[in-house]
Amino acid sequence: MNEFDVIKTFFKESRFFTNPHKIFKCKSFVGIGDDASVFSPPKGFDLVVSSDLLIEGTHFRSDHTPESIGHKVLAVNLSDIAAMGAEPLCFTLSVNMPKFDSNWLYGFCDGIFNIANETSCKLIGGDTVKSKENAPMFFGITVIGIVPSGKALKRKSMKLNDDIWISGALGDPGEAIKNNFFCEKLLTPQPRLALGKKLLEIANSAIDVSDGLSSDLSHLLEESSKNLKKKIFASIDFLSVASCLGPCLFTNYLKNKLSLDECCSLAVSSGDEYELCFSARKGLRKTIKSLSLELNLPLTRIGEVICERESEKIPGFNIKKNIIWKNTKGLPLKPENYPPDGFKHF
Amino acid sequence: MNEFDVIKTFFKESRFFTNPHKIFKCKSFVGIGDDASVFSPPKGFDLVVSSDLLIEGTHFRSDHTPESIGHKVLAVNLSDIAAMGAEPLCFTLSVNMPKFDSNWLYGFCDGIFNIANETSCKLIGGDTVKSKENAPMFFGITVIGIVPSGKALKRKSMKLNDDIWISGALGDPGEAIKNNFFCEKLLTPQPRLALGKKLLEIANSAIDVSDGLSSDLSHLLEESSKNLKKKIFASIDFLSVASCLGPCLFTNYLKNKLSLDECCSLAVSSGDEYELCFSARKGLRKTIKSLSLELNLPLTRIGEVICERESEKIPGFNIKKNIIWKNTKGLPLKPENYPPDGFKHF
Repeated sequence: MNEFDVIKTFFKESRFFTNPHKIFKCKSFVGIGDDASVFSPPKGFDLVVSSDLLIEGTHFRSDHTPESIGHKVLAVNLSDIAAMGAEPLCFTLSVNMPKFDSNWLYGFCDGIFNIANETSCKLIGGDTVKSKENAPMFFGITVIGIVPSGKALKRKSMKLNDDIWISGALGDPGEAIKNNFFCEKLLTPQPRLALGKKLLEIANSAIDVSDGLSSDLSHLLEESSKNLKKKIFASIDFLSVASCLGPCLFTNYLKNKLSLDECCSLAVSSGDEYELCFSARKGLRKTIKSLSLELNLPLTRIGEVICERESEKIPGFNIKKNIIWKNTKGLPLKPENYPPDGFKHF
Repeated sequence: MNEFDVIKTFFKESRFFTNPHKIFKCKSFVGIGDDASVFSPPKGFDLVVSSDLLIEGTHFRSDHTPESIGHKVLAVNLSDIAAMGAEPLCFTLSVNMPKFDSNWLYGFCDGIFNIANETSCKLIGGDTVKSKENAPMFFGITVIGIVPSGKALKRKSMKLNDDIWISGALGDPGEAIKNNFFCEKLLTPQPRLALGKKLLEIANSAIDVSDGLSSDLSHLLEESSKNLKKKIFASIDFLSVASCLGPCLFTNYLKNKLSLDECCSLAVSSGDEYELCFSARKGLRKTIKSLSLELNLPLTRIGEVICERESEKIPGFNIKKNIIWKNTKGLPLKPENYPPDGFKHF
């Protein structure tokens, strides 16, 4: 089967898109099958672009179902689009398959085109490669989204005294990886697109939790500190984090396998969550609670942004770190007892 | 070194871009370091998007210099942008490095940022991954370009009686891969961006030669046949192809190692050329010759687009094929003697 047959057989997603994608009704649209794809971006919008690599053995396991791998490959990129408050438009997909397996590829396409269809994100191009057989399978994906001009949610625009919020539950994907158990959230994460879009009018800053809250929140604080030209800190309460523990982690607490503080520490270090962590001013608590009901998605206030003077009042706190963790009794952890950072890439 | 240090050390390309990139002077620009990058596309332009995967052992060898690998990774994508008549704007780069080698990475960045700078194509994001050590190194790249609205050069718009043209010389990269000799064009291909842009006003259709002219021209004909709703054919003259043989291949002819027909057959099967093959109406020959002088780039007319009735006059021609090759004596080759197709992906 040559590359063109593969594209025709597997990657023409017309069986999924029953209505023509509204964005591509423009005259100049060119999709799969030319040197590059062409489209007109809608007026009044900025473009939002995110790229990821997903490798067998690092980001997914070969014994995961092809449907879940297809889903995840696109979902993790859509999560970045969600964190900018943007709406997905289209994506390119590059695939390396050391061994060609058409059954596997059918399953993969079911997974990726189902979520593409649900989120109105159209495949516009990509690349297919067959490497040597001993190489891992991997996928390169680029998603292009749109956001009203100048409105994108950035990491760098946290404000002093902002509340810090997290969507959904934390911890189960991390536990599932460590202890090798089935976890739907790990296999088929749901990008928080509806939330991201609503946050455009509410949040000051946002990031998606892919490496672990401890790492990702740290990035928010670093970027915002640079932008504000003064160092800011987050104070995070484990008592609030405890109310958004994933069910598996919470079961471990109920069975007395772990203390509540240990559970919280694991939850804030767990990667592969694809929840949104965002900051918003204190006056918006009611609005955010209503939003949580509207979206049927837990939104939990877990702490706040404080200044250096406030952080100095915390006994034993080392200002080289930018997060102050308070245990479920409200007492600050010492930096040496901090939750580990999340996933390290190098 | 964590991912952020890698990005800061290697992928902040300010040492290359001395002037701020004009396109990104917009208020809403967000570059590397957020969940996704954000920019405003200029008004009156369509976006052109192309993605490629390049894998060690398949697309480049580990003993190639890191500078040439960096150059080629971006160049092959820019070639797709050139084939649409577009101007590059920005790119994302995803990197898998099984072993972290900072010297190698410095060289790679020199290569990629040099060509990025020359072509005003700005890095806006990507991903860095460290897979298991036995995996190959690979790169995923997506280039976004712009073209005046509705003007992109497509594969499908070849017209009956068009002349068929090729830029530059053909054959040396294919020979270099087969016989393992040094070939600058193979290592550091030059995307034909200036030509592509000029062809917007001249050509009816275009494709870049990455898999081999025999394959790539066939795609032009297929797509255009579908679009015209009648089958069209190309008649290609080896006597014209002979005048654009690469110097190594031509030397083999001069040394009597190969006949001229054999050289032409190899030239039209050689991949990794990154020349543009385009079609234009016969009335534009003078214009194209002047363009060749202006760009200091050979542009050779190698054949024409013919209809089914014309193709039936060719003795022994099998209309399942869509290219009629004529040897240097002007006699049609039999389909069984045709140049092999170029690179097969699966």
